[in-house]
Amino acid sequence: MKNNILLLIFCGIVSQVWSQPTSQPSFVSPEVHPDGKVSFRLWAPKADEVKLNAQFEKAPLAMQKDDRGVWSVTVSAVKPDMYPYAFNVDGIQVADPKNSAIFPNEGFQNSILEVTGNSPLVHTLKNVPHGTVAYRYYHSPELGIRPAVIYTPPGYEENPKKKYPVLYLLHGTTDTEETWSKVGRANIILDNLIAEGKAEPMIIVMPYGRAYPKISKSAGSLRNWDNLQEFKTDFFNNLMPFVEKSYRTKPDKDSRAIAGFSGGGGTTLFLGLNNLDKFSFVCGFAPGMLENEFERNNAGAFANPQQTNKMLKLFWIGVGKDDGLYPVNLKFMEVLKQKNIKHETLISEGGHTWMNCKLYLATIAQKLFK
Amino acid sequence: MKNNILLLIFCGIVSQVWSQPTSQPSFVSPEVHPDGKVSFRLWAPKADEVKLNAQFEKAPLAMQKDDRGVWSVTVSAVKPDMYPYAFNVDGIQVADPKNSAIFPNEGFQNSILEVTGNSPLVHTLKNVPHGTVAYRYYHSPELGIRPAVIYTPPGYEENPKKKYPVLYLLHGTTDTEETWSKVGRANIILDNLIAEGKAEPMIIVMPYGRAYPKISKSAGSLRNWDNLQEFKTDFFNNLMPFVEKSYRTKPDKDSRAIAGFSGGGGTTLFLGLNNLDKFSFVCGFAPGMLENEFERNNAGAFANPQQTNKMLKLFWIGVGKDDGLYPVNLKFMEVLKQKNIKHETLISEGGHTWMNCKLYLATIAQKLFK
Repeated sequence: MKNNILLLIFCGIVSQVWSQPTSQPSFVSPEVHPDGKVSFRLWAPKADEVKLNAQFEKAPLAMQKDDRGVWSVTVSAVKPDMYPYAFNVDGIQVADPKNSAIFPNEGFQNSILEVTGNSPLVHTLKNVPHGTVAYRYYHSPELGIRPAVIYTPPGYEENPKKKYPVLYLLHGTTDTEETWSKVGRANIILDNLIAEGKAEPMIIVMPYGRAYPKISKSAGSLRNWDNLQEFKTDFFNNLMPFVEKSYRTKPDKDSRAIAGFSGGGGTTLFLGLNNLDKFSFVCGFAPGMLENEFERNNAGAFANPQQTNKMLKLFWIGVGKDDGLYPVNLKFMEVLKQKNIKHETLISEGGHTWMNCKLYLATIAQKLFK
Repeated sequence: MKNNILLLIFCGIVSQVWSQPTSQPSFVSPEVHPDGKVSFRLWAPKADEVKLNAQFEKAPLAMQKDDRGVWSVTVSAVKPDMYPYAFNVDGIQVADPKNSAIFPNEGFQNSILEVTGNSPLVHTLKNVPHGTVAYRYYHSPELGIRPAVIYTPPGYEENPKKKYPVLYLLHGTTDTEETWSKVGRANIILDNLIAEGKAEPMIIVMPYGRAYPKISKSAGSLRNWDNLQEFKTDFFNNLMPFVEKSYRTKPDKDSRAIAGFSGGGGTTLFLGLNNLDKFSFVCGFAPGMLENEFERNNAGAFANPQQTNKMLKLFWIGVGKDDGLYPVNLKFMEVLKQKNIKHETLISEGGHTWMNCKLYLATIAQKLFK
């Protein structure tokens, strides 16, 4: 910590002036009330207008300033879930400084509101055996030192002979390797499903989806062609060998799945459907795609539908009715039907959100490796 | 992702209006130039005044707005290190939305600038063997499910019989269990020192320092008496047993160290100096303390200095000359001298910063378990 106000709190001693002294009043944000209403608060005495942008609301909500300079709004009970939100302060999007639950992202700042409700949800942290979320590095000759977040299920350390199937799980464009655990709660969802006997214990590999620095961070969607090529090279040459060397994996295609959201969903289909010898399970979560790229990006699966159906144990696509990608996903499903390529679909409520990502993961996790 | 601008980038399709459409220009922030200068940029077309608060500057720097609404400032070459910074937008502290390196904290928002310079520093990510940073949960009957971040050194997985010493490493007030790895680079520092043969391979346990929910997040310093009591109970009853059950630790006092920063430094001295049978290494990094609490908080070590000197292999205190806690730390060192309690000190340049934390950790890591 390095703010005077904090030093004052800690020790009653004021050090050098680094940031301007503040007289921020004490308050909590977000505050989930017992009746399910939620209050959001931000100290912004000089702001002219502060709004709340929360993914449980279709439009920004006006906030009111009190005489301490604290803006606030209380919203009526929202459906239990985890929601990204931010404050809009005179046009600037600001995460909630009082909330350490941050949405890992390279393009915007959001905080996470968790509303648990009366009974735990599939992503609620419960007192069940917990797996481990490990932050690892691997080396790519082309891209340098790359991060990956890797979940091992409860019991992994205690059963040193046991081998596990692997789900590769890709984030969306501008997300990072941390987004699936921190916003998608992949680890907690699996902990809970494994505890209930609903999912097979599995390793989940959550890599960083942009082939940076070869592909710039401002180069658009992860499923753009150049990123697909560079990411594919890194995936098969470096990431997968690192995982299979470092973890006790079952190294056969029936023990390997790939899934991903949005731009990472497009990447998932490209990697999965063109490498049917490596993956028996391919799942797109609101996958990013363009109609004029269907044939090129999915050539491996489209070439011989009968063979594709034989090779894939699960080909799954989920998308929300309010998602901007809903129309193109419907078109893609039409094409699959025309080509007689077997697939399962989940058309959910809602839009292009991480609330839906959690639903999709919880759904497919119960279908994998069975 | 859920912004229209992003959806536009991804797929050319506009979905429901969730947040207002934006026309944010493309730019990078922060940008470290080849000559070591650094540019910071923020899009804030409606703001009246934007300043940069960076820990390499003593005072906020004015930023200038261009005709696109992008505020920027370029600073002259700064000493290679990692620096917390934020923008002050009309009085509100805002992290850099273009930078996914966020300072994990419950009280403020900062981003992290890394300036590497021409030769790698002790905390620079290099192509050496890397340990694992694991996000774990353990259960406390009093406090519920608690997070801890745990570093295991390179080779831990490959040497299933080898046992390791353990450093417990505590963050400062308002920091979280992630701050030591993300801002303090504890894992990278150890990876580098171990690769050079300068530090013993060790496990580092980075728990969450507030006894929440028993102790409120707004209850001031971690070294306040009530938090010390609750944290101590959790530490010895739950955290340490979890670590010694889950990891291959050497469970003797000569293989156990405790260190911590600021409020967590005060906690470190309290836990370490009152439990000389459990820790042979006790290190305070700018430890938070009050003169009138010296006798009470350190009673275990003060009671019998000769015994204390025999029990401790290292008692170490580091503090910066510009730190608000420098005077009270000097007083504490005086008291130790009067009592003939052996200790090592490092009086560094600089203030109450994570730049100094990294220096202190890199210093003591080379002294532990030898």
